[in-house]
Amino acid sequence: MCANNFKINFVDGGVCAIRGVKTAGFREGKYGISIISFKNSDATGVFTSNKIKAAPVLSTRETLKNGKLSAIVANSGNANCFTGLDGETDCKDMINLVADELNISSNEIAIASTGVIGRRLPMEIMAKLIKKTANNLDDGLSSSTNAAKAIMTTDTVHKEAAIEVQLENGDKFRIGGICKGTGMISPNMGTMLCFITTDIIANSDYLNKALKKAVDDSFNMVVVDGDESTNDEVILIANGSSNLDVNVNEINEAFQKGLTVLCKNLGKKMAFDGEGASKFLEVEVINAGSEKDAKLASKSVVKSALVKSAVFGEDPNWGRIVAAIGYSGADFNPKKISIAIGSDDINIDDFDLININNINNNHNINNNHNINNINNGSKNINFNNNSINNSINNSINDNENLIYLVKNGNVLGFEGTKSLKNAEKAMKKKYIYVLVDLSNGNHTATAYGCDLTYDYVKINADYTT
Amino acid sequence: MCANNFKINFVDGGVCAIRGVKTAGFREGKYGISIISFKNSDATGVFTSNKIKAAPVLSTRETLKNGKLSAIVANSGNANCFTGLDGETDCKDMINLVADELNISSNEIAIASTGVIGRRLPMEIMAKLIKKTANNLDDGLSSSTNAAKAIMTTDTVHKEAAIEVQLENGDKFRIGGICKGTGMISPNMGTMLCFITTDIIANSDYLNKALKKAVDDSFNMVVVDGDESTNDEVILIANGSSNLDVNVNEINEAFQKGLTVLCKNLGKKMAFDGEGASKFLEVEVINAGSEKDAKLASKSVVKSALVKSAVFGEDPNWGRIVAAIGYSGADFNPKKISIAIGSDDINIDDFDLININNINNNHNINNNHNINNINNGSKNINFNNNSINNSINNSINDNENLIYLVKNGNVLGFEGTKSLKNAEKAMKKKYIYVLVDLSNGNHTATAYGCDLTYDYVKINADYTT
Repeated sequence: MCANNFKINFVDGGVCAIRGVKTAGFREGKYGISIISFKNSDATGVFTSNKIKAAPVLSTRETLKNGKLSAIVANSGNANCFTGLDGETDCKDMINLVADELNISSNEIAIASTGVIGRRLPMEIMAKLIKKTANNLDDGLSSSTNAAKAIMTTDTVHKEAAIEVQLENGDKFRIGGICKGTGMISPNMGTMLCFITTDIIANSDYLNKALKKAVDDSFNMVVVDGDESTNDEVILIANGSSNLDVNVNEINEAFQKGLTVLCKNLGKKMAFDGEGASKFLEVEVINAGSEKDAKLASKSVVKSALVKSAVFGEDPNWGRIVAAIGYSGADFNPKKISIAIGSDDINIDDFDLININNINNNHNINNNHNINNINNGSKNINFNNNSINNSINNSINDNENLIYLVKNGNVLGFEGTKSLKNAEKAMKKKYIYVLVDLSNGNHTATAYGCDLTYDYVKINADYTT
Repeated sequence: MCANNFKINFVDGGVCAIRGVKTAGFREGKYGISIISFKNSDATGVFTSNKIKAAPVLSTRETLKNGKLSAIVANSGNANCFTGLDGETDCKDMINLVADELNISSNEIAIASTGVIGRRLPMEIMAKLIKKTANNLDDGLSSSTNAAKAIMTTDTVHKEAAIEVQLENGDKFRIGGICKGTGMISPNMGTMLCFITTDIIANSDYLNKALKKAVDDSFNMVVVDGDESTNDEVILIANGSSNLDVNVNEINEAFQKGLTVLCKNLGKKMAFDGEGASKFLEVEVINAGSEKDAKLASKSVVKSALVKSAVFGEDPNWGRIVAAIGYSGADFNPKKISIAIGSDDINIDDFDLININNINNNHNINNNHNINNINNGSKNINFNNNSINNSINNSINDNENLIYLVKNGNVLGFEGTKSLKNAEKAMKKKYIYVLVDLSNGNHTATAYGCDLTYDYVKINADYTT
């Protein structure tokens, strides 16, 4: 176990940050098509666990059994789900259209769809958009943005990110992605689609393990409304253009961490843009008895309709937080629990202002402490600053920007207290951070979500999605 | 297994429908006190499974180990939860005040609280209200209503019900109850409290088994927002004033069914009055492979934020229903599923318009089919008419008021179809009934809920509860 130092920097270009990847995306009304092309790459996918699976999900799962892809096509505006044999035919027709345009085999094309359930795809529009998109594939930086925009549905901003990982010897590899929607295990019906490219050399089996691990710590920790879509897909392709092989130990480790950082970044952007969201909510549970407990407790708080409503109302209602932890299934002693709140004003791009130096090999990315450098005078908020050598507990206790409402089971946030008043002020900002210390072990997890607003209800009551 | 015929009729009086029970309730501002007095009765309770339990929950759980109660005291306005040793003292003081007023032992008094978490009880107000309430105990019909009103928090209407069960030989016994809040396993934070009285002769162990079974099929099938309170209590007391002993077989069976009918009635009223609710949602899953599957699927639909938003928007969005069943964990074949919608205009009192004749001993109360007699020309809607001898499937398929959107996996509710238009019209009514046929066995379950509205968000964003 030698120390393995590497740096992670965010770079421009999304999926096209990787040499050899071309993309484009176009819209017509509520419909959009994105194509990502990368020629004969190793590939894997993670799919919805909903018993109802859309035709494109079933098709891509089958295609990926070969572990190879040359292109991905995705459409917005129609989920092609619960559409029977007609839907399967439409799905095949879309793939064949892309195969013809790109002159590749239909067995190397993944497909994904997002939009309304139970309606036939408008194939004329699809055909026209596929042709236009295929003819405009490009590796320029803006093409990834266009592709990210073409798959948006109720999203209000497109989501993309790319990182460059620099090893100690100077070698570099990249990972880039675009996504839409709100999460994997508990997304809303807008469907979560994510396409990730990397220039590492890795086979499909390795990529699958790495992707599952990264998704577990990122997209699966994002909760917007607890509904799970019929169409969720995350696809990862590796085209090997960096000439760096993941079988080398230090590359392996750097890749896994880099992939998790990228997925967390995209996951946070999803939560930030959750349907109707006015605030971004991050709940970190530390000192849990197990990783499972930490995840149960953090997700329970982020998922609670009452906590989400309180966040919308800018009410530091720690009673609801305590209750949500209480019914989460996590083990803890109420007399030892601590709850603190922090906040800051951020916008979505701030998630990319990060410079990760992996100084301490044992410092897990999950274990970074996100609030440490908030309000440090710089606009460069280090949301994931895991370069700190302090132990987590020390840094938390020392942090004057955290407002404790409950400490070791004692209530500090009673009505009329300075703590509660400070917390009320803190709740007015855009980014709300909740720290829960269970004092029951040394496991940590962070979940991401957003508030429950009038607009969430409006979006989902007014429109068939 | 002889046929056991009995009739269940709703009667007036709530908890005071039972001879020997006195009650009263008074409010002062946001605080209220209810006392129910019944002298040395057999008793049992079911409590929240939240790890965080309020002081009154811990106290009552301890008291009920003796299986005997003489009174119940409940307050609204403050949950006395997460209040440490001070909270335990306040709880004991309240009990002692009641013991003094009623001249009974403090070991025979159950206590329950509902309201804001983490604040000390205002003991001066509590003492004043307890004195006033204890001095006004009465067995008149209106006293139960006053008690039900005094425990309301965000409730907009008080909830009470009582039934009289008449056996074939003419013997009668009664069960009455009052409640507030929204459900047991998945209530909102308003806390679910329910106090049930009966004149049957039964010991505490029997009552406990009967209550758990009834709660599982009623309050545990009510979902308003999926949050589970720290203060939920359901208490059942039997004072034996009917002189009918539950150890007689036919009484035993009639009591269990009667108790379930009463709890379902109160559960439906809770869902009807869910926070911010504008519509009552009932989801019945039939022909499931197991009871567990039926419960998973029905609760998943009722709990889905997207389904709830669609109901608010009067949108018959069967795609979201299909998706919610898909991620419920229930086993089924998407190609065999059927989904239908029915509706009617009702008000909360219609839940009491019921006359249950238990003609067929094998016809389980869970298996009745609720929509059958809707729109039958009478205002007496039989929501739980289980006197029908038809098999469930026949009666559903014959019912012209059910609008099928999916039948045996085929979509009937495409855009522009008559089915979808009829369903859109149906969604405008107050009571929305969703029938899901999994064609995977012969198990049935019904879950109750409400829509997700702007008012839900407003209520929970604007006020600390």
